[in-house]
Amino acid sequence: MSLDSSTRDATLRALQAIVGDNACLVADADTESYVTDYRRISRGKASVVVLPSSTEQVAAVMAWCHTHDVPVVPQGGNTSLMGGAVPDTRGDAVVLNLSRMNRVLAIDTVNDTLTVQAGVTLAAARAAAEEGGRLFPLRIGSEGSCQIGGNLSTNAGGTAVLRYGNMRDLVLGIEAVLPDGRIYSSLRGLRKDNTGYDLKHLFIGAEGTLGIITAAVLKLMPQPRASAVAFVAVASPDAAVRLLGEAKRLSGGAVTAFELISGPALDLVLDYLGNVASPLAQRHDWMVLIELSSGADAASLEATLLEILESGYEQQLVQDAAIAASVADAQTFWRIREEISDAQTRTGGSIKCDVSVPLSRIADFVDEASRRVLELVPDARMVIYGHMGDGNVHFNPLRPKDADAKAFLAQWYKPVSDLVDGLAHGEGGSISAEHGIGAVKRDDLRRYKSQVELELMWQVKRALDPKNLMNPGRVLPAMGEGG
Amino acid sequence: MSLDSSTRDATLRALQAIVGDNACLVADADTESYVTDYRRISRGKASVVVLPSSTEQVAAVMAWCHTHDVPVVPQGGNTSLMGGAVPDTRGDAVVLNLSRMNRVLAIDTVNDTLTVQAGVTLAAARAAAEEGGRLFPLRIGSEGSCQIGGNLSTNAGGTAVLRYGNMRDLVLGIEAVLPDGRIYSSLRGLRKDNTGYDLKHLFIGAEGTLGIITAAVLKLMPQPRASAVAFVAVASPDAAVRLLGEAKRLSGGAVTAFELISGPALDLVLDYLGNVASPLAQRHDWMVLIELSSGADAASLEATLLEILESGYEQQLVQDAAIAASVADAQTFWRIREEISDAQTRTGGSIKCDVSVPLSRIADFVDEASRRVLELVPDARMVIYGHMGDGNVHFNPLRPKDADAKAFLAQWYKPVSDLVDGLAHGEGGSISAEHGIGAVKRDDLRRYKSQVELELMWQVKRALDPKNLMNPGRVLPAMGEGG
Repeated sequence: MSLDSSTRDATLRALQAIVGDNACLVADADTESYVTDYRRISRGKASVVVLPSSTEQVAAVMAWCHTHDVPVVPQGGNTSLMGGAVPDTRGDAVVLNLSRMNRVLAIDTVNDTLTVQAGVTLAAARAAAEEGGRLFPLRIGSEGSCQIGGNLSTNAGGTAVLRYGNMRDLVLGIEAVLPDGRIYSSLRGLRKDNTGYDLKHLFIGAEGTLGIITAAVLKLMPQPRASAVAFVAVASPDAAVRLLGEAKRLSGGAVTAFELISGPALDLVLDYLGNVASPLAQRHDWMVLIELSSGADAASLEATLLEILESGYEQQLVQDAAIAASVADAQTFWRIREEISDAQTRTGGSIKCDVSVPLSRIADFVDEASRRVLELVPDARMVIYGHMGDGNVHFNPLRPKDADAKAFLAQWYKPVSDLVDGLAHGEGGSISAEHGIGAVKRDDLRRYKSQVELELMWQVKRALDPKNLMNPGRVLPAMGEGG
Repeated sequence: MSLDSSTRDATLRALQAIVGDNACLVADADTESYVTDYRRISRGKASVVVLPSSTEQVAAVMAWCHTHDVPVVPQGGNTSLMGGAVPDTRGDAVVLNLSRMNRVLAIDTVNDTLTVQAGVTLAAARAAAEEGGRLFPLRIGSEGSCQIGGNLSTNAGGTAVLRYGNMRDLVLGIEAVLPDGRIYSSLRGLRKDNTGYDLKHLFIGAEGTLGIITAAVLKLMPQPRASAVAFVAVASPDAAVRLLGEAKRLSGGAVTAFELISGPALDLVLDYLGNVASPLAQRHDWMVLIELSSGADAASLEATLLEILESGYEQQLVQDAAIAASVADAQTFWRIREEISDAQTRTGGSIKCDVSVPLSRIADFVDEASRRVLELVPDARMVIYGHMGDGNVHFNPLRPKDADAKAFLAQWYKPVSDLVDGLAHGEGGSISAEHGIGAVKRDDLRRYKSQVELELMWQVKRALDPKNLMNPGRVLPAMGEGG
């Protein structure tokens, strides 16, 4: 279907009547940032970008679009790495951006819940929790831009999943507008409710293909009384996994983060940061950042950390370690870890694979995938880092120093990512641990999901969105009759 | 449809061909325990009780039943309190019991996962975890009989939810046979996998109305290095909630259980146990059982417990407290809590309401519901206990000592449970926190769920089970076109 201007005008007038003139954008200059994805890989077109201020407005927009067969692309902070939050180039879709629904609705420090509209940024949600003396534990790099609705729709992960779970585990209820404009709500803040199907799980992780999440009740946690952080050189990925086992055993559940960092990843980020030194005296091939946190006093927690490291030395898992002696130290260790992503973006020419495998297979996977990628691209810089404690690594081979970024990606992106994804899948793993599917990996699902899984996804999709208007062309690969 | 014997014979012959003669039961004496529910409230009829030994057998049975429009009632340990695991009286349904699929398939102590068939009992799963030096934390009274498949299908809760979550939170993947015999599998043991809809959540908590769970990968936890238990008299339900807040704040996440026990509940269970004394010198109206556990050493954890109790005394929340000085003490405290359920069953005449409300409302709810029930039934014994830390209480008014159990229930069950459920609902709560819906509460959903929630449940049901053959007449209330 090509978009004629009369259709667009009718859409614009209808949406203006619902949300007001100043909440509808159509000029290219105004819509540019809403139709271009975060990584600037794809640039689509929108019929109208609409910015509703209330759930009722969202419902009215959805009902109108449903009646008139207009596709809708839900959008939060537009930080998807998978092109999941921008429209395609057909130009017939309405982009429904939640940014104006950015109110913290309630905090209940007895029930330990925070109720927010979907457009509240993760940073604002964390700040609201902290003001109430509580922790909202989701921790990802884009927290200043990404929004709770998007965090839910993509089941965001990050660096504290090992302790607190993914976004799916951090929410008690949601409000969502269905494709036809009906409003579903489970904003009750209950930790137990076994009264029929738990419908919120349909919308969490569905990347906006089944409806639009408009509000949520988030779980709050006690703020830890103490934390202890170490930057540790380990003998190998296998040594890292075994050290994690010791950390779990000796701390009994206090391991909050366990992040792998390869030598080339550290080289890259130190070069990028310029004025930050490695916490360790020598260069190492593999390191981990460990954080423990708990309700114990700081001295007891540090003793546990020392016990873990000593056990690691004894078993020749640990080669060297720096324990953060101050909050500033801990922040520096974390900054090194967190800036790896930006360092890659700035450098250009990074092949991003976000894979997970069972922890018992991850060391073999990292060894084998590294070997195989270096066979293909002998000079690639093996930037490998991420949430090893969850079996999740960002396996991101980077262009050789003297290679052109564009040419490198054009030649190697597909063969390398197919190789890495295939190896992860072969180890019983996932080709997208936390980044989702969006547009980028949609067709890959045909290779990596069983026929029954794909059929079930389409059975659910058709049941909730029979007109296929919600974020069309995202997540679900086209199938014979289905897409 | 009435069942004629030729239909039944055809079903029997077909199923015998799939599972063998000795895995099909039809004689009344043989099927009795499979068609009668745990509480002996309802007794149904089955066409055949079939006991498959493998997923492939389950799939073949389901495919045959689907083709021939035969309803199927999935059954695990048959411990449902809601009549959710037994057939109705029509006699046309096949009861598909998973008991013979009771193998522990794998334990992975690096990935911290346990893979089991659905018929493994909870006790056997816990034992397998313990053999591997790990904890599988689900803890409910029926652990010796109930099975993992049923725990998943009902999203079981229990006494460790505050720390570890409900059953839904304790599983990484499942295998399920769909209504038409297709096999869905996500037995990969991944902590992160954002590749499309997380389909396992369709089957968890669906009480067998969308398919049959045949296997699961469960999360294992580190065994705590220390635990500390106290039996505490508190001034009121409100004092209990405030003490919980102190416990969370001061322990930073180490509160594993926080169970409320009313005076009449303690009276009842001590009377039932006979040779067990109250941990406290005097009688109190309200008590809580607190358990902390963590990776800290025992001395540090006990210091934290003391700090919590001292803070409670200072704020006049705590009236008296007994700290378990030994493992035997702790076991006695827990035995008192856990035997309340059996004490009620033995006594007879218990009106079981399993409600939850937000923690910030639970004290008011308990006060108000108690007052209103006593207005109706002045001599009722207010047996109130359960998982206050989750906002969940078993609010179970018991017949007066001299009242006949049957007559009491006939007169008061419905008015009292309607009253209690209505008050919980009015506080934003749930009428079934952990027991599910089954047959017993199915029609109540029409009052307590929104129209959109009911419609969505039916949209999902029709998408997965268009012939309505899976556990028909359970969970989903009949609606115009739907049921």
